[in-house]
Amino acid sequence: MRTALIVIDMINTYEHEDAERLLPSVRETLPGMLRALERARADTSDVEVIYVNDNFGRWRSHHDEILRTALDGPHADLVEPLRPDDSSLFVVKARHSIFYETPLEYLLGQHGIRRIVLCGQVTEQCVLYSALDAHIRHLDVTVPRDAVAHIHPDLADAALRMMERNMGARVTESAADDLFD
Amino acid sequence: MRTALIVIDMINTYEHEDAERLLPSVRETLPGMLRALERARADTSDVEVIYVNDNFGRWRSHHDEILRTALDGPHADLVEPLRPDDSSLFVVKARHSIFYETPLEYLLGQHGIRRIVLCGQVTEQCVLYSALDAHIRHLDVTVPRDAVAHIHPDLADAALRMMERNMGARVTESAADDLFD
Amino acid sequence: MRTALIVIDMINTYEHEDAERLLPSVRETLPGMLRALERARADTSDVEVIYVNDNFGRWRSHHDEILRTALDGPHADLVEPLRPDDSSLFVVKARHSIFYETPLEYLLGQHGIRRIVLCGQVTEQCVLYSALDAHIRHLDVTVPRDAVAHIHPDLADAALRMMERNMGARVTESAADDLFD
Amino acid sequence: MRTALIVIDMINTYEHEDAERLLPSVRETLPGMLRALERARADTSDVEVIYVNDNFGRWRSHHDEILRTALDGPHADLVEPLRPDDSSLFVVKARHSIFYETPLEYLLGQHGIRRIVLCGQVTEQCVLYSALDAHIRHLDVTVPRDAVAHIHPDLADAALRMMERNMGARVTESAADDLFD
Repeated sequence: MRTALIVIDMINTYEHEDAERLLPSVRETLPGMLRALERARADTSDVEVIYVNDNFGRWRSHHDEILRTALDGPHADLVEPLRPDDSSLFVVKARHSIFYETPLEYLLGQHGIRRIVLCGQVTEQCVLYSALDAHIRHLDVTVPRDAVAHIHPDLADAALRMMERNMGARVTESAADDLFD
Repeated sequence: MRTALIVIDMINTYEHEDAERLLPSVRETLPGMLRALERARADTSDVEVIYVNDNFGRWRSHHDEILRTALDGPHADLVEPLRPDDSSLFVVKARHSIFYETPLEYLLGQHGIRRIVLCGQVTEQCVLYSALDAHIRHLDVTVPRDAVAHIHPDLADAALRMMERNMGARVTESAADDLFD
Repeated sequence: MRTALIVIDMINTYEHEDAERLLPSVRETLPGMLRALERARADTSDVEVIYVNDNFGRWRSHHDEILRTALDGPHADLVEPLRPDDSSLFVVKARHSIFYETPLEYLLGQHGIRRIVLCGQVTEQCVLYSALDAHIRHLDVTVPRDAVAHIHPDLADAALRMMERNMGARVTESAADDLFD
Repeated sequence: MRTALIVIDMINTYEHEDAERLLPSVRETLPGMLRALERARADTSDVEVIYVNDNFGRWRSHHDEILRTALDGPHADLVEPLRPDDSSLFVVKARHSIFYETPLEYLLGQHGIRRIVLCGQVTEQCVLYSALDAHIRHLDVTVPRDAVAHIHPDLADAALRMMERNMGARVTESAADDLFD
């Protein structure tokens, strides 16, 4: 059973509503995301890295343009360290869940991936919804709690408990030995 | 814009895990569900009533059999008052969300329904997931808080706040004048 | 890899347009369908039998009612021999393809079924569309040509060639030794 | 009701099987495709142009890269005239139908588009499958027969008759006055 690390919505200009509430949490969890990313990219790893990112309604855009726009924005320091490399896969989404009207499920099936590790933002929104949609599809889900950023701490806490209790997700840390197992 | 009242998972034997925690909340919210159901069935109403119910893995079953099994169970008193009538529509689901791998979206489209009112169970599970999947599809969602039953009060409370804040849902009461508007 | 025999749209009142053109072909292919059905139901078989049938817009109906209506119609002789038994699974569809907005893909996955044998009607419509949707999902498809009924012989012939050439389907006979292999 | 012109799989290196059989038909229908494209792009038109193109398994690619690869190939003369401009929308697909596991249906809904005109390739494969998937979704479909390229003339002819007879599609010419109406 192969594993993928999914990086959710981190190619971002942070111009949306609630960005001010989100940014401190992004800064706090960036090291956890980087740790997960480095571990997934290590030579000894068989973990696929897949970026699933909102296209912000820009149907003319491809991912280079989404990335460039984010790197030209005021929060490039939060985007640059997480930028996709040549081995990253990239899926554009239009709505909240990483599965809704995207080819992600097909892509995972083609790569023999049955376990996904979710990092990125927002814990109580896209991360929660994606964990649910993965659970419904009988995929294994792991969420490193120090690698997901939130807007509302109490809703994020409830979201993590929902994932753990009702969606069979494993909530752990980005440094956990068995993060990708 | 037409409206449907969706009754979620109330044709039930309550034999699943957590049933003991759920039952008191079902008893408490049954009057709210009945109120919503009666108002939707009133002659002057243009509200469609749609039952969306788990098939509990019984792919041989149709809804009469699901209903009969529930009425033969120990909690028939919670099922009988809510039973479908001849004008009810019925959709079988296999997983948590009322939309996942079901014809519900197609059915709503064919009936010109763009607004759904959710009642039934469980607030922090199927109701939450269905509200999300409706929001992603740009449907209007209303949830009467006295007509949805929960297992964990704190997660149910967080779920209602998530629906209101992040999914554009209106949380109201089953007696609200504008319940179906 | 498990196999399912899918019986498409044979619970039917034949009141639709083109029924007069379809009926002779149904009568001609009924023995092939029965042969496939008997072989699938044999004790030594591990083949699941799944009826996927149009609900003809009757969202209030369950399959017993669809069956009863068909048995009360003028062509009960074409329905009776093919009626589902207690071990048959049943999936209701609303549109042409057996996969569109139905739980069939989920059901197949849960039963470990990766190969489907299609019989029923109409070769150049539902059967063709279902073969395509199965191919897109990387399922193996077999079509016994003497067990699928058509309206237009030339379009049916083209449909079978499309399935064989472009959808990786195996076109064979209901009596073929390897029908379910 | 708005209209979109969909350009299917024309950003292509023509390295696949059957390319030799396809190329003469592409050359023959290129003028029809260009006519449709110019008319859609005219200032007075309200027609959206949407490219839906296979990603050929390159999940790392965005559309610029797919385009560049095609322009570097031996058949750049067939790609260059049809290249997307700055106002074109672009959707990547992984399998045959333009709708399967893509955001196209969502995109059309967001743009208020209920009518699509299909051009590109291959008539008896992607064009046929896309016409079917559009019909199932109650979209209006038009196919200008001089703007779709085929591999097998007889299957292409059958495919056009299937679209017309069974999928409610209008088969017309790229020069037809009412192409986008």
